[in-house]
This record gives sequence, C-alpha cells and structure tokens, in this order.
Amino acid sequence: MDYALRRRFGRRLRLGMVGGGLASLIGETHRMAARLDDRYELVAGCFSADPARGRAAGADLLIAADRTYSDFRQMAEAESKRSDGIDVVTVCSPTDKHHAAALEFLQRGVDVICDKPMTVMLDQAIGLVRAVRKSGRLFCLTHNYTGYPMVREARARIGAGEIGRVRLVIVEFPIGTSRMVVEESDAAKRHWRFDPARVGAAGILGEVGTHVHQMASFVSGLQVVAVSATMATFTPRRRVYDNAFLTVKLENGAQGSFWSSYVAAGNEHGLSFRIHGETGGLAWRQEEPNELWLMPFDGPQRRLSRGQDGLSAAAERASRIRIGHPEAFTEAFANLYRDFADAAMALRMGQALDRSALDFPSVEDGARTLKLIEAATASNERKGAWVDASLDLARILNEG
Amino acid sequence: MDYALRRRFGRRLRLGMVGGGLASLIGETHRMAARLDDRYELVAGCFSADPARGRAAGADLLIAADRTYSDFRQMAEAESKRSDGIDVVTVCSPTDKHHAAALEFLQRGVDVICDKPMTVMLDQAIGLVRAVRKSGRLFCLTHNYTGYPMVREARARIGAGEIGRVRLVIVEFPIGTSRMVVEESDAAKRHWRFDPARVGAAGILGEVGTHVHQMASFVSGLQVVAVSATMATFTPRRRVYDNAFLTVKLENGAQGSFWSSYVAAGNEHGLSFRIHGETGGLAWRQEEPNELWLMPFDGPQRRLSRGQDGLSAAAERASRIRIGHPEAFTEAFANLYRDFADAAMALRMGQALDRSALDFPSVEDGARTLKLIEAATASNERKGAWVDASLDLARILNEG
Amino acid sequence: MDYALRRRFGRRLRLGMVGGGLASLIGETHRMAARLDDRYELVAGCFSADPARGRAAGADLLIAADRTYSDFRQMAEAESKRSDGIDVVTVCSPTDKHHAAALEFLQRGVDVICDKPMTVMLDQAIGLVRAVRKSGRLFCLTHNYTGYPMVREARARIGAGEIGRVRLVIVEFPIGTSRMVVEESDAAKRHWRFDPARVGAAGILGEVGTHVHQMASFVSGLQVVAVSATMATFTPRRRVYDNAFLTVKLENGAQGSFWSSYVAAGNEHGLSFRIHGETGGLAWRQEEPNELWLMPFDGPQRRLSRGQDGLSAAAERASRIRIGHPEAFTEAFANLYRDFADAAMALRMGQALDRSALDFPSVEDGARTLKLIEAATASNERKGAWVDASLDLARILNEG
Amino acid sequence: MDYALRRRFGRRLRLGMVGGGLASLIGETHRMAARLDDRYELVAGCFSADPARGRAAGADLLIAADRTYSDFRQMAEAESKRSDGIDVVTVCSPTDKHHAAALEFLQRGVDVICDKPMTVMLDQAIGLVRAVRKSGRLFCLTHNYTGYPMVREARARIGAGEIGRVRLVIVEFPIGTSRMVVEESDAAKRHWRFDPARVGAAGILGEVGTHVHQMASFVSGLQVVAVSATMATFTPRRRVYDNAFLTVKLENGAQGSFWSSYVAAGNEHGLSFRIHGETGGLAWRQEEPNELWLMPFDGPQRRLSRGQDGLSAAAERASRIRIGHPEAFTEAFANLYRDFADAAMALRMGQALDRSALDFPSVEDGARTLKLIEAATASNERKGAWVDASLDLARILNEG
Repeated sequence: MDYALRRRFGRRLRLGMVGGGLASLIGETHRMAARLDDRYELVAGCFSADPARGRAAGADLLIAADRTYSDFRQMAEAESKRSDGIDVVTVCSPTDKHHAAALEFLQRGVDVICDKPMTVMLDQAIGLVRAVRKSGRLFCLTHNYTGYPMVREARARIGAGEIGRVRLVIVEFPIGTSRMVVEESDAAKRHWRFDPARVGAAGILGEVGTHVHQMASFVSGLQVVAVSATMATFTPRRRVYDNAFLTVKLENGAQGSFWSSYVAAGNEHGLSFRIHGETGGLAWRQEEPNELWLMPFDGPQRRLSRGQDGLSAAAERASRIRIGHPEAFTEAFANLYRDFADAAMALRMGQALDRSALDFPSVEDGARTLKLIEAATASNERKGAWVDASLDLARILNEG
Repeated sequence: MDYALRRRFGRRLRLGMVGGGLASLIGETHRMAARLDDRYELVAGCFSADPARGRAAGADLLIAADRTYSDFRQMAEAESKRSDGIDVVTVCSPTDKHHAAALEFLQRGVDVICDKPMTVMLDQAIGLVRAVRKSGRLFCLTHNYTGYPMVREARARIGAGEIGRVRLVIVEFPIGTSRMVVEESDAAKRHWRFDPARVGAAGILGEVGTHVHQMASFVSGLQVVAVSATMATFTPRRRVYDNAFLTVKLENGAQGSFWSSYVAAGNEHGLSFRIHGETGGLAWRQEEPNELWLMPFDGPQRRLSRGQDGLSAAAERASRIRIGHPEAFTEAFANLYRDFADAAMALRMGQALDRSALDFPSVEDGARTLKLIEAATASNERKGAWVDASLDLARILNEG
Repeated sequence: MDYALRRRFGRRLRLGMVGGGLASLIGETHRMAARLDDRYELVAGCFSADPARGRAAGADLLIAADRTYSDFRQMAEAESKRSDGIDVVTVCSPTDKHHAAALEFLQRGVDVICDKPMTVMLDQAIGLVRAVRKSGRLFCLTHNYTGYPMVREARARIGAGEIGRVRLVIVEFPIGTSRMVVEESDAAKRHWRFDPARVGAAGILGEVGTHVHQMASFVSGLQVVAVSATMATFTPRRRVYDNAFLTVKLENGAQGSFWSSYVAAGNEHGLSFRIHGETGGLAWRQEEPNELWLMPFDGPQRRLSRGQDGLSAAAERASRIRIGHPEAFTEAFANLYRDFADAAMALRMGQALDRSALDFPSVEDGARTLKLIEAATASNERKGAWVDASLDLARILNEG
Repeated sequence: MDYALRRRFGRRLRLGMVGGGLASLIGETHRMAARLDDRYELVAGCFSADPARGRAAGADLLIAADRTYSDFRQMAEAESKRSDGIDVVTVCSPTDKHHAAALEFLQRGVDVICDKPMTVMLDQAIGLVRAVRKSGRLFCLTHNYTGYPMVREARARIGAGEIGRVRLVIVEFPIGTSRMVVEESDAAKRHWRFDPARVGAAGILGEVGTHVHQMASFVSGLQVVAVSATMATFTPRRRVYDNAFLTVKLENGAQGSFWSSYVAAGNEHGLSFRIHGETGGLAWRQEEPNELWLMPFDGPQRRLSRGQDGLSAAAERASRIRIGHPEAFTEAFANLYRDFADAAMALRMGQALDRSALDFPSVEDGARTLKLIEAATASNERKGAWVDASLDLARILNEG
C-alpha cells in the first residue's frame, strides 16, 4: 500500500458519523471501510437522536464522551469550533435526513460522504449539487458497488473500445432473502427501507434501483435519456413498490433493461451487469466480484481476474492483495473511502487532486439518479409510456 | 428404455421430411432426434425444390429414389397412395412454407411435426388450429427446449406449489455469436432467418422470442395477457428487428421480462429462465441443462440434477442415462419425437393416449405465440403502450 | 453431417451385440451411440444366456427371431455363414467374458467394439493384442470419455505445445452416488461390478481406474512408467477395492496423481483432468463437457467452448451441433461408433483409412491399462513401493 | 459487531510487528487484518534490520520514531520497560527468524501472533510449544485460511456427524501464477520462499503444504498418522521442492490425498478441500470462499452460503456482513486477529476465555505440521515408503 500521501499529510483524517448506531449494519460497514486502509480515525458521532443510545454507541466505539452528539446541527457547530474538529463526516442515517445533514456539514467546511440514495426528492438533490459546488468541499455518494476493481476494469475496457460501441446495457439487482420478501405483520418491526415516509413511495427504486442506475452509467459511460417503467407491489402489507422493470434508452442509441426487486425469492443478492457492444460483451456478478467475463464475439470467453497482470490502472489502484486471494464487499466499499481520503488530504494540503482518486460517485451522479426515479415513477403512472430521464444540470444550475 | 409400445405396434413409424436438406442444420437435428430412440425410419422426403439437390439428399440419406420429391404436395399425394406410406411428416422448411405444408399432410391423414415458429401470421396459425382439430391428427411444434428433463422438473415443481404462487417470470434468449451479430454484406449470403419475406418483420420475435414465450408459459403454467415492447434493429444492413425487450403481465397477477436478442455479442446461446414465487425461485440455463436450481427463500440453494432420486415423473420420463452422465440438446429434442411417437402409435392402434406422452408443444401453443408476436409488434409501434396479448381460442373457433 | 463415405458403402453396417440385454444400461447406451449417426443397423444379438430373456430382448429390439442367440459362439458361427451376416459386433457383457467373445468374432472376420475394461487379466489382454493383429480386423475399446470433443481439443492443444512440456497430470474419477457408496445387504442384489469373480480383485481400478488411465494417456500423450498405489475397501460387505490413490511417473519426467473411488459420497460423477505444463494448464470436467479451460500462466483463463471457431480439426470432427447447443455423453459415445464405422467401411471397401477416424482407443491401450492395474495392485501389496508400469508390447509380441 | 469486551477492556490492544516492512505483502495483510475489527493499534515495530529502512516504514505507518527498532531483541526489551508497551507482537519475518523472535517476546509477557510455517525444524517447534506453555501467554499461528466462516461451518457439520464418519480427505493447494512457476535467473531477485537457507529444503511443504495439513486436520477433526510422499523440483534453477504429492492415513482409518504445488501453471490460487464421509461430502474452494457445498449421497447438492440462516455458531461468529455481500481473504485473516484479541483481552482482565474465541491455530498445531514435513521428507527419500507422522506431544513434553 502506498502511504506517501498520508505521510506528507502527517496524520489520519478525523472522521465523524451521522447515523450508523450500533444496531445499524450500514454504520458498521462504513466504519470497516474507513478503517481498512487506515486513512481515518473516528472521533465524533451523532449516532442516535436518543442521547443515551448515542452515548452508548460512542462509548462502544471508544469515542470521547464530549464528542458524542444527539443532534447533527449541534455536532456540526461544536466540531467546527474545535482545533481538532472533524475533517470528514459520513452521513448514513435514513434517507430523509441526508439532505439537511449534508448541507449542514458542507457549509462548515467538512467534506461529506453520504450513503445512497442521496435524497428522497429530485429538488433536494439539485440543492445539494449547488451546495457542494458553492462550498468547494468534496462529496462522495457511497454507491459502493462501483468500488469493485473488476467493475472499474469493465469501465476501462469499454472506454478503450474493447467491445466496440455499446448497444445493450442489462443491469439487475433482484434481491430475494426472506427479510426482503416478507413484510412484518407488526408494523413497528418493519424496516425503514419499506416506509414511504422515510424513502419515498418509489421504494425499490430508491434503495436498489439507484445502484442499478449508477452501475449502468458508471460502467457503460452512457447516461440514460428515457425510461419506460412497470412497477408493482407484490408483498402483502408493503407500502412501497417492491419490483420494477425498466426499459431504458441511453445516449448514442444504446438500449437497456434494468430490473430491481425485493421479491426475487431465493436470490441472495443479485446485482449484475451484462453489457454488449458491437464486437463483444462484458459480464460481472457482485456475488463473485473478483472475476469479470470478457466475451469477444469471435473467440473464447475470458475470465479476467482481479490482481492479474494486464489489467487497467483503475483496477490495479482498487486492488490490495494478490490474484487468487479474493477481495470482496468491504474492500470495494473501502476503495471509495481511500479514494476520498486521497482527495481530501490533497485538497487540505492545497495539492492538485489525483484524477484517479476521483472515481467515487459524485453529487451530480446522485442528482441524475433522482431524475431517473422521478421519470420512472411518472412512466409507471402513465402505463409504461416513455418519459424523458435526462437531466441538464448545466442549464438548471445556470437558471437557478 | 421401454420398448413395450413399439413391440405392440410391431414396427417403427414411417417418417417423411419437408425441408431439412443436407445443408440444413435443423434438418440434421430433426433426424438425430428421430433416430435416437429408434421409433422412426426415414423413408421419404422433399428436401429441396431443386430436384437434383433433393435426389442427392435422398441418396445420402439412403432413401429410395422414388420417394424423394421436389414438391411437398406431390409427396403428400404419392405417399398417401402407398400401402407403406409415411405415418408422420416433419416440416422444417423456412417458416413461410409451414402453413401450407402442414395443411397438406394433415388432410391426408399424416401426423405432423412442425418446426417453430409455426407460421408467419396469426391468421395462418388459427387456420392450423382448425385444421388439426378437424383432421383428428397429431401435431407437435418443436419448441425443443421444453423437452429438457429439468425444464419439465421446473414445471412440475411449480405445479406442486413448491415456490408458492408465481410472481415473476424472467426468460431470456440473447444470442451473440458472430454469425448472428454481423449481417453479411453480400445479400445473397444472408440467412433466411433475417429475411422479412420469409419470417415476417418481427424477426427476432419469430425465431427466438417464440422460444422465450413457450418456455415462460410451459414452465410457469401461466399465459401472457398483456405486453409492453421495445424493439430495435442494431445491426447495419439488417432488415428485421434484432433485439426485443418485452415486459409482460401474466394470468394471476404475475409479471415478467422477456429478452430476445441476436446482438448480445459474446454470448454463445443464452436461453434461461428464472421464476420466482412467494417462497422461492427456480433457475435454469440451457447451456448447463442437467441442473435446475431450487432456491427456497429461507434456506440453502439446491442444485437439482437430472437423473437424481426424487424428481418428478415428467423429468424421469424425459431422461435416459444415469445422474452425472450429462444429456443435452439432442436428447431434449428427441424427447419431443419420442413422446410424439408414443402418441402416434397409440392413436394408430386405437389405444388411449398416455397423457404423459403429450408434453410436446401443441398447435394451440403456436397460435398463442403468434398472438404475442402480433401484440408485441403493435406495442412497439405504439411506443411501449400495453397491448392485450390474450387469445380466446374457444371464442374464435366458435365464431369462425 | 458428412454422408459421403456411407453413400459409397451403399448401406449401413450390420451390427450384432453380445450382452446388453434390456435390463442393461450399458447395452442401451451402446445402441443409442450406434443409432445417433445412422451408420449401423442392429440385426443380431446374444443378449442373454437365458434363451427366453434373449428372445424377449430381440423382439423388443425388432430383431428377427432367428438372429437372437443365447450363446456367442453359436452366434459367431451362424452369422458368419449368412450373406447378410454382421460386420461388427459390440461386446458389452460383464468383463470376464470379453476376452473369449472378442476372440471368437475376430477370427471370423467381424470387427469388434468392446466395452472396458478390456479383460480381467493382463495375459488375456496381450492375447487380444495378438489376435487383433493376426486377424487384420478393427478393434475399439469403448473408453467413451475420450470421445468428447473438448477432450480431443485438449489433446490437440498439448500436442501443439500450447502449455509447454507437460509436468503434472491429475486425473480423477471419484464417484459417490448412493448405489456406489452402499453395498446391498442381499448378496444376490449386488451389481457384478463389485464381484471379484467377474471383474477381478482390483475392483475400482478395472471399472473406473481404467478410464482414468486412458484419459491421462490420451490427453497428455504420455505413458505411465511407474506407480505407487494405496488402495482400500471402505464399504462394509464389499469384496473389491473401492478407493485407490495412485501417484504416477510418466514418460519425460512428468508426474501425476490418479484418484478412483466409489466412495466419494455425494459426488454425481467426478471424472476430470487437470494437466499442467511449463507455461499453462488445461482443465476439463465430464459433468460440463462442452467447456475446456485453457489457463496460460501469464494471462486470463479462457473458456474454450465446443463448436467455437478456432478449435482443432479433431474437436470439429467430433462435434455435431452449433456452439451453445450442448452435446453430451451420448454424442461422445457415438463419436467412437462413428469413427469406427468410418474405419470399418473404408476397410471393407479396400480404401485407405482416414487417420482422423482412428481416434478410438485401441487394443494396445487396453493392454497398457491392464498392465497399470497389475502394477498398482502389486504396489499396494508392497505398501506403496514404486512398481514399473511400462509395457513393452513390441518386445512381448516379438518374444511370444 | 460486538464491542462489549473491548469496552470493558477500555482500549485497543497495543500491537508490535517483527518483519512486515513496506515491501512485504504479508506485513500489510497482517496490518489490514489487525485494523478491520479495531481491536489493535500498531505502536511499535522492527520492520527491518536496516535502521534506515525500518525508520522509513515506521514513519509511513505513523509510528513514533522511538518505537521503531532494528533488532527484535532490543524491541522486546525496550517495550517491556514502557508502561504503554506492546501487548501483542506479530512475527512475520522470514521463517528462519520465527523461533527466536517468538521466544524473546513470550518470555517478556507479550502474546504472540506468528506467521506460518512456525519454524524451519521440528525441534524448534517443540521448543516453542514448551515456551508457550511455560510463559502462560497466548500464541496464534496464522493459518489464515481456517478463519473463513465456511471452513468453520464445514468443521461444525462434520463434528455434528452430517456426512457420517469421515473416510476421505482431499486437500490441495496447487499454485500456478508466473511468479511461482518461473525462477528468476538473477539469484538476487529470487524470493526467500525459494531459498532453502530461509525455509528449509522441503520448500513447498513449509510454505504451502502446511496450509494443506492444517486445513485437513482442522476441518476433518482428524490427525494424520502416516504419509507416503513423492516430491519433485520441476522448475529450472529452483533449489527447493516445488511439487509434492502426499498420500496420507488419518486417525480412524480415513485416508487422504494432499497436493501442494508451485508449478500448477495457470492456477490462480488453488486451495480446496473435499471431504467425504459415509453418507455425504463437503467441498470448498478458497477462490469462492462464501460457498460451501454439502452433498448428501442421496439428494440434491446444497450450496451453503455465508450469512445464511441455520449455519453454526462458529460460522456466524466469523461473519460480519449479510448474505450475498461477499466477505473474503482479509476478513478470514481478521477473524484470527479478532479471536486472538478477545482471548488476549480476557486473559489480561483475568476473565475466563470464551472457548469460541480459541478457534485460531495453536502452537501445537504448528508442531504437528513440522512433524508431517519431516515425515514426508523422509518418505520421499525412501521412495514413497510409509512413514509415521504422528506426534505424541504429551510424551515428548513429559520426557523433555
């Protein structure tokens, strides 16, 4: 591992968290990701609105008692006054709080790592784009699956023309474990991801479909420009959509199919992409993330393997261990944290940003995804009619 | 293998062919399928409209010179006059001839095996339904992929409620070999499957999408009732659609996604289904046909294997060799021929038909598929609007 | 399919069988293999020593009553007197009868296809080598697994130097279905494959280990020259060895490991090879026979696929259907029958033999395998000491 | 994650390292493993015998300058005098230094984590057993592959009798990347793993075979009692064995096959086990570590999946993230560190040790592995003769 930048910076970045208490799986995931490459020390947190629970979490995490907060605004204010205040904050609370929390820290000079989906509504997302640009701070949306080395390899191969012009973009994320397929009969026990008040009525599109959309754009290098959607709620007692079939048109005439589901019963995860160009295809499955299939249309399929000689610089940068020693979910997540750290340290030292460190999803990516959700919801309501899904951010920001 | 029925019948069925000359891969496939279980002897054929080529094929196939014909009507007439005339005819010429040839033989008392798609137009398909019913003969549409033992196992499991009520039906057949992805620059060298005059403008839907539709209906036990389609032609010089994304609604509220493609560059075949019900899923891929994945939503995924103890009677009937000794494409195709032979021998002996022998796709299945093609084409022309795809054959036949 | 040779020959070969009655799976397997490519018609048989059972089998198989025999010597004599007597006989009785039956037909001018293992004892095997050479007839030992196209591809790649000089040859055939793992408590119900009187005491080595040895030699192109063996009987009531670990030395300094087992409980089949040379490896599993992995040591692993452009002539010859449409066990078995037919027709027409038709295992292969069995048994008795396994046939035949 | 024990302990364990400088992949691996679960802070190190290189590593790792040492004895002495001295040391220098370094820290009250192989010679290993017992400290040998959750699941299933009494234990670790297959022509560039002076002449058995042996014993619960070995050096210029075929006998009459190789050209990693008992088998491959195949001999094979309901407590303890979100090499390695931390914290607080935290390989395991290496080397020298591989530690320690 290359420690040169951190040595120049002279210390680890000071990290705070909003959300991610001890019962939160996603919080622990962020913490493991932050620890893996040793660029951060967790020094402050607003882990719960309930002060007692927040303090308990802080104690468990060995955080000083005076840096455990029960209100993110108070945290932002207090930390900004300390000489050893946080450099970076991770926002991993339920979706409906992302917008306000991110704004609060951005305006106090803190770089923000935000869990997905970025916001519930498109206008909030556009507001965040403005805020990030105005603040001059860094912002990362943790579409963690794009952190996988072989996902980055796929993007690099497509960018290099290895499968020719892209024609078909098939991305799926059909989940099917029992906790997703069945809705608790006791409403109090239901997860907030199924609560329209917390995530919006689009449900599956916010929680799962955003990953699908980001993956499609990231790997193909193409933006979605129109969508025809069919959404349904299959699970009794569920109040959000839990299955969405989207047919999409992308820039350059490519077409695609996006499938997001909570009710693909029996699946364990399900995220995959298959992208076909004029002369070949690329296929990847999150459940076997160290392999990427390159399929030329006139020769044997090749199993590209993480850590192999001959991969792209982007894949090599995102890889830690030798070929054959699998890396997985945590490392992919940590790649976003490591890239972000490299960018944040450089920014704070006034150095030029290493462009290869900027592979993490941006606030603009988040806004485009919210646009897709909005368009798909409209298409579904209009019985599958094609709806414009393009987002002209330059125009909007200019007008606004 | 059980030879009891054939012993009672006392001989092999006499088989004729229309189409399937020596250059035809599909012809040879039918012949291997007919030979494997030794229920047929090929004794007559109309292999080509060109008499010399037809005779050469007949000689190669060791068929008597006077039973090689250059016109299927002449063949039907001549064979029907012989005391040793054919019992069964296989029609495997290009699609546009299926309708006339099948009618010709049906009305002369010959049982018909017909390659897919059944006809180019829906009205021809309905005409064939009438003709079969009127003739009292047997008719098999060779959707050969439904002959796989593990496909039949999947149907049996769903029928037995093993995954609960079906919610999602995902069937794909995205091909991507170079011969499919690239259209010959010399029009004379192009395959008839890409000629709208031979297969209809729907192109991919006739050749490939029909397999998708038949597989979905066969395995799920549900009919498609509506479709929203997005079709495209990606390949330069191609004159038919070569990619189709269909979103479908099925009986009972299930939804599905059907993908048919000639341009999934790099794929070798691609046919697969994934069907999810309330409590689990079933997944199968044609390229590894001996395994069927049963995925309960609350426990380990199980790899059901052809030849295993505990499979359904339908799967056992369709299997010849022990577990671990793979069967494949030819055996699946042969299962249609064997089932058809059992039905044809029983019919000719005036015996009751064994219902388990009637698992082959029917003329009605063919008509329903033509209806889907028509509906999908209309939906695509109407920009993805939902179009009724149900076919009320009882009403139509009654009215007609 | 190429019918030119058969057209010149003017008819199918007349085939007889010894063994392979209706209860015999292997008999039916041979019959399907013989039928698939339409080079044979089954016209005579000695299916059982019990005349009634033999006649019943003949009737089921539509064989004329006067050509169903209950003694193979009588069959050989009667058929040799007919003008339409058999050209080829398949011997698929239990092992202990192979030697006598093969001799009988060879000396009457009938070409012989013989199931494996060729004989129980090495001296019988050497006797057969002499008899074949003296008779001038053709002899095929049905090590059917070498009939797979991708097995032949592997041999061709190694022959072409694609993985460099071979260093390691790992071949396994560890079976584990319940019928293999458990020995019937009722001795009368036990399969003859577990009866030392029928197969010899080496047990597993005759039935299974012979396939391992033939595969290793066929693919690597190297003969085994020494063996160190550890054999065991794990199953209660079993009277033959049911597990054998062999370490072997091959020509040219290569080493290998051969594992044969009836007690790898839970396996469905298990035959596989992995061969590593100086610069790469090749791996194949019988349960997914259409793919062969080519693994260069410095680049991505490649999944070679049956039917693909760029494969060897040997693989193409052994393949019938397009890529993506799997072939399997029956086709591999049929490849031996087809090659043998091509050789037998040419021989009978006085034509030069097509060398590519001679890929089937020979009587010499059978003798070498018996030598390995003998050597392994000796090594096991001498506690794993290395024992010479080379067979200098030239010297033996010269001396004898 | 459960932080309760750490909260009671009140701080992270203070960790030192011997070896593992910046150019060392294994050093960084240990550091990631130590960081992942946040039980350690790295505060001291002897990263190089060259003071300048050691200081550079310490600076990169943000270690205080006065705690970077160039001699492990000096480090042990200096740290033992500090009130904030290290609690735990990781020894990951080349093998020949393990023995002395481990002794040095044990006698100063530091718990020791030691990379494998434990020592070069068996007598050193036995000496370490004595030293650990005398010191009362904890010792972990980082056979990291036993840290995988599904490896622990396999052990639990076998322990529970799920496949019946174990008969066959097949473990392989055949590597084949170019850096293993080819020996540098410049001797100065060769890795120390190929230097007999650093690792002993057994070569492959120390570096790779030890993992095979530990895996076999750990999962099967059986010790090896005898070995017949065939070892070879295939690579030009190589001075240690680079391939070893071992046939082994285990307690209770089980037999097995162990294959270790540097020359399985084209493999990426290769570690796997297949264990068969009376009624079924279990199979696992390190390259897809989240799945474990349970293969009952009478029913469908089951793909057990990390994170699934119904797994053993040992597997659950070793797992962090939900099913479908793959964990891999780093997490498996970290499991040893986490378990060790739990034991070390409890020991230092005078609490009873949680037995489930003691799943890490012990000093006794290391001694048994050295015994196997010695026995295999002797067997190879005696041409494969069976050699006793059992180690009666109780007797030896009593006598010594």
